[in-house]
Amino acid sequence: MYQKELQKDFQELLPFWKSISSHSQETLINHSEPVTFPPGTAMHAGGEECSGLFLVLEGRVRAYIVTEQGKEITLFRLLSRDICIFSASCIMKNISFDVFVSAETEVKAIRIPAQCYNEITDSELAVAKYTNELLSSRMSDVMWVLEEIVFTSFDKRLAHFLLEEGELEESDVLTITHEQIANHLGSAREVVSRMLRYFANEGFVKAERGSIRLLDKEGLEAI
Amino acid sequence: MYQKELQKDFQELLPFWKSISSHSQETLINHSEPVTFPPGTAMHAGGEECSGLFLVLEGRVRAYIVTEQGKEITLFRLLSRDICIFSASCIMKNISFDVFVSAETEVKAIRIPAQCYNEITDSELAVAKYTNELLSSRMSDVMWVLEEIVFTSFDKRLAHFLLEEGELEESDVLTITHEQIANHLGSAREVVSRMLRYFANEGFVKAERGSIRLLDKEGLEAI
Repeated sequence: MYQKELQKDFQELLPFWKSISSHSQETLINHSEPVTFPPGTAMHAGGEECSGLFLVLEGRVRAYIVTEQGKEITLFRLLSRDICIFSASCIMKNISFDVFVSAETEVKAIRIPAQCYNEITDSELAVAKYTNELLSSRMSDVMWVLEEIVFTSFDKRLAHFLLEEGELEESDVLTITHEQIANHLGSAREVVSRMLRYFANEGFVKAERGSIRLLDKEGLEAI
Repeated sequence: MYQKELQKDFQELLPFWKSISSHSQETLINHSEPVTFPPGTAMHAGGEECSGLFLVLEGRVRAYIVTEQGKEITLFRLLSRDICIFSASCIMKNISFDVFVSAETEVKAIRIPAQCYNEITDSELAVAKYTNELLSSRMSDVMWVLEEIVFTSFDKRLAHFLLEEGELEESDVLTITHEQIANHLGSAREVVSRMLRYFANEGFVKAERGSIRLLDKEGLEAI
């Protein structure tokens, strides 16, 4: 059975674990389950369903919003040890926006049902306070995106995105299409392609078949 | 003394009031104070100081962010019965952005010191849960701004802003400069002026000395 593993992971990864009652601990262990998502699959598709909270063990998760026209913008990424609360937005009062969550790489995670988390929040101050910290942290991410979009020109945003992507992939060759970049940045494919041609002319990057090679990272940083 | 008044206002406006201990109630009453801000004054200037929470009794409050270049963008407005938590962001872990708060009209409010709110949050589950609701609600506001900026063209945003301003002022004549509108929308004065000339040509608005008259609200809504 996986309960023993869960207990070990919770103990290590949930800061409130030691502060809650053994009854609450058991509730969490008995209702949560390990889940695996192949790369590119949806973990949570907007507000309708209530997928629960995901505690990420391995892999990379992307949270984003989608417009009626199908345009996307990335809000934040979650890595190992992070917890995704917006896939359980049904339990939060006053949340009036839809966040989509998908696995960028293969993701191993623990799913905590929304109802279960809600239940222990109702009796455990430590969990309610932890939720405050989670919300503040994600809000800071979103504010960062907002500031970047409003106040940063597109060349800076694209340069920053390429550098960050290089770090996440731990490689100077990024396997990503112009369309995908446009979705991350809430822009259009044509705008991305035009800026990448400019970057290539300046010798910062080289476009290759289905990928982008970072040639001059210092040049990109200088932008 | 104003303590009796405070108790009455807290009882009416703080949803958690009845759920907390009389000790916590007394702490809140003894440390909070009524405050008045003239129109246009700063209630909280970014992250450095920790001004405390403001419970708005009368008037209109604006929360916004500011860039290094001095550009502004409005995040949300608070009216009577709303509570401003970002003026106490020092007590929140993981908040890494600066929100500025100012009085748009004369504002009467109750100031709850950050330390005092923090103290009762440490022992009162109802307060921690209320903070979650506040954070979720403000996060929804910010997401709305983000979506509007990313996905809505500037003509729509300006039309929406003028209509909203008309409702807030309860008048079809808005006393506001192009510069101020630009600050609300994170844009430049020139861009606002150009779009207002277009709106005037279409007969939606009329520019007057130091003000803007809304002539065709249905036309603006149609945008």
